[in-house]
Amino acid sequence: MGALDEGRFNVELENGVKLGCVELGFEEEPETVAIKDAVKVLLQGLGEDINREGLRKTPLRVAKALREGTRGYKQKVKDIVQGALFPEAGLDNGIGHAGGAGGLVIVRDLDLFSYCESCLLPFQVKCHVGYVPSGQRVVGLSKLSRVADVFAKRLQDPWRLADEVCLALHHGIKPAGVAVILQCLHIDFPHLESVFLDSDHQGWVKLLVCSGSGVFENKKADIWGDFLSLLKFRGINVEKPHTGDSTDQCWCPSRSSSSAKISSNMGPAHPGMVTAVASILGSLGEDSSREELVGTPSRFVKWLMNFEKTDLEMKLNGFVCRRMDPLKLNGKASCNEEEIHSELNLSFWSQCEHHLLPFHGVVHIGYFSAKGVSPISKSLLQSIVHFHGFKLQVQERVTRQIAETVSSLLGGGVMVVVEANHTCMISRGIEKFGSSTATIAVLGQFSTDPAARAMFLQSIPNTTTFG
Amino acid sequence: MGALDEGRFNVELENGVKLGCVELGFEEEPETVAIKDAVKVLLQGLGEDINREGLRKTPLRVAKALREGTRGYKQKVKDIVQGALFPEAGLDNGIGHAGGAGGLVIVRDLDLFSYCESCLLPFQVKCHVGYVPSGQRVVGLSKLSRVADVFAKRLQDPWRLADEVCLALHHGIKPAGVAVILQCLHIDFPHLESVFLDSDHQGWVKLLVCSGSGVFENKKADIWGDFLSLLKFRGINVEKPHTGDSTDQCWCPSRSSSSAKISSNMGPAHPGMVTAVASILGSLGEDSSREELVGTPSRFVKWLMNFEKTDLEMKLNGFVCRRMDPLKLNGKASCNEEEIHSELNLSFWSQCEHHLLPFHGVVHIGYFSAKGVSPISKSLLQSIVHFHGFKLQVQERVTRQIAETVSSLLGGGVMVVVEANHTCMISRGIEKFGSSTATIAVLGQFSTDPAARAMFLQSIPNTTTFG
Repeated sequence: MGALDEGRFNVELENGVKLGCVELGFEEEPETVAIKDAVKVLLQGLGEDINREGLRKTPLRVAKALREGTRGYKQKVKDIVQGALFPEAGLDNGIGHAGGAGGLVIVRDLDLFSYCESCLLPFQVKCHVGYVPSGQRVVGLSKLSRVADVFAKRLQDPWRLADEVCLALHHGIKPAGVAVILQCLHIDFPHLESVFLDSDHQGWVKLLVCSGSGVFENKKADIWGDFLSLLKFRGINVEKPHTGDSTDQCWCPSRSSSSAKISSNMGPAHPGMVTAVASILGSLGEDSSREELVGTPSRFVKWLMNFEKTDLEMKLNGFVCRRMDPLKLNGKASCNEEEIHSELNLSFWSQCEHHLLPFHGVVHIGYFSAKGVSPISKSLLQSIVHFHGFKLQVQERVTRQIAETVSSLLGGGVMVVVEANHTCMISRGIEKFGSSTATIAVLGQFSTDPAARAMFLQSIPNTTTFG
Repeated sequence: MGALDEGRFNVELENGVKLGCVELGFEEEPETVAIKDAVKVLLQGLGEDINREGLRKTPLRVAKALREGTRGYKQKVKDIVQGALFPEAGLDNGIGHAGGAGGLVIVRDLDLFSYCESCLLPFQVKCHVGYVPSGQRVVGLSKLSRVADVFAKRLQDPWRLADEVCLALHHGIKPAGVAVILQCLHIDFPHLESVFLDSDHQGWVKLLVCSGSGVFENKKADIWGDFLSLLKFRGINVEKPHTGDSTDQCWCPSRSSSSAKISSNMGPAHPGMVTAVASILGSLGEDSSREELVGTPSRFVKWLMNFEKTDLEMKLNGFVCRRMDPLKLNGKASCNEEEIHSELNLSFWSQCEHHLLPFHGVVHIGYFSAKGVSPISKSLLQSIVHFHGFKLQVQERVTRQIAETVSSLLGGGVMVVVEANHTCMISRGIEKFGSSTATIAVLGQFSTDPAARAMFLQSIPNTTTFG
């Protein structure tokens, strides 16, 4: 989603806070170079030209995003909490808990992201942290967020993430107890072979996990009730959180879907690409032979191969001619009798060629055709969307390609709106969690008829989320 | 809200991306030292001891927050956009607009914050940007966010911010046109003298502004209709945006409220503090004699003096005794007949002593008293909340103090919940826009009776926002 994603680093160095030093070159560091080389192997494995303009800087962008997104390995909780513990009196007299001696403190709705250790895709986390002060001291509230972020910025699963944040805060603050609740959201990207068939594919896996220490260690303790009540005020209803006691659980769709199972007996496909991904894990400071990571490179490559470059062309004319012939025979397709048809909320999945990260959402297609007759079926339009989506793409291009394909079938006015969430807008430097993008292509009559554009756009229902 | 807010810088330097250099000391830079010195003057002007634990690092924290929050002065749009322009074909054939030659591209819901040039408080911005590509090239989508942030990280008013973002993108991308819409939210902090009287005080000033260039220059152009339709899908209804053509408009509550008018004839109060704030403006790289900034130091000091340290004690016993006497006479105050009373959603305003930034929200108070009789009026409880709020505070302490005051009047079980948004959670490094904090104090019966706590907590209505 934008080259020069050294942007973040430039910005940090130029941010008016002179660091008083010269950057010796993130780009030249061995870890960066190793990841860049591995990404080149992956791009070539997809059949892409690594020198084409849109991809030229992709290896560097991926290296930066991954290294920054896993910077937590090198951060120390002690450095964050130390000096942020403030003396704070408890009750002057009387029985009870308040201030620096008891009295629950919570911070809700911290937006974080982490990397799934099973598939290397980022997942979103809404983090809620509470603790009960003791020893007449409290911690600066922002530190709860900073410490959570240290562990989010690693390869994780939700259970471990909750436990690590909880444990680190407990050791750092030495309170009466710590409670952590994470609402995790993992993209469930459909596979190319199934997406054309499964129109009801759900785009997300949701999971709620919790962890507790000290007075929160017992999940049935009354103090949990207080904590959950405070979450409820903000619309966060926690019924049955998954606790971290079953290590065989797995939430990542790449593991749970039967098609994605990697048999250890079967030699992996694309061994060069798998080796490249394993080397990336090493460059991030991970042990790629760690049990949870063993299958990750194969799973990532399997997913990535959804976007292999192919020279297939869509053979669609047959469909349309059959459907349009009757119209022509009946002579109803005169211009005056045309009206706007629309097909809304077609699901859309694609892969950002600048960051090798998914973007996905919905496509709305409007077109002119003879009154009362829709010459293109919804399933055909959906197939066109998937055909162009399952490639390394940018949103502007895929919007144009969908419009051109539909227009070539109908020969007339077509308007296409693509609305998407870009994973790269959250899992990199700018971390814009709520942002979304929209692109429009306007062909034929629509380009000269603002009223027609408005009519089509007004037919699109309001949505605050999609995917 | 947490000392060691060098945290952000530590984290950047430790983030696994070795910068290959030694930090020579942000803390020792002359601009930092000058701001620290000025903040010490302000704290002393408030009657505070600058060496007390909670305040010891406040000057440094304020200096860091301000310098980071205005880093946009030293950033260059060219560096961000350059290299992020990608060749992208337009239509292969046919009439219309798509891809790199026409075809609107928008990014919605970018969360930013900026500093109000009239009062130096941060304000929140939801930014929506659109542009129409031309010349067969598109810009990386994240760059729209990065460029907007360059101008947000300055002392601003909404109109100028919209215009500067628009102009910079137009020059940087050279598109057919750029449209910018900003939804701005400025805290309207009540003054100490009026807060006890004005129970309907609205906590926010909202403003929607827009700016357009090229094909968006004419606000009545059809392309604006397309842009606004795409915002509408996300629930953003734009009726009558304020355009940037009237320079005498002002949205900042510190200017619009009649009590806040600074007469140039009248010598400013607290001249030492005003001079200190003017020196801060200079240290940030601003010209403190710029027309829009001339009154800013006085306005900031006037606001800050809301939190002057006083040795006043609340003289409340008179109220309560009068009200409780009848109960005692009637002999109804026996323990068995007590029930839980609650007063919910009392408005709450305070000032974070760690960052000199506001935090605000609501307070819920529960207490035991004789059945059917509420011995404390809502207005008295509201006064207690304001009394403790209008000081340099931390949320844990103010929660305890409110509970202790109420308990001292009633002599029994009291429970206090404070829910707040902390400006310092958004306008500093961690930028957690949606986060909120809650703290609880539990006294007397409540501390040993989980069912009573639960009953009180369940009486609190769900809210997703407050303030």
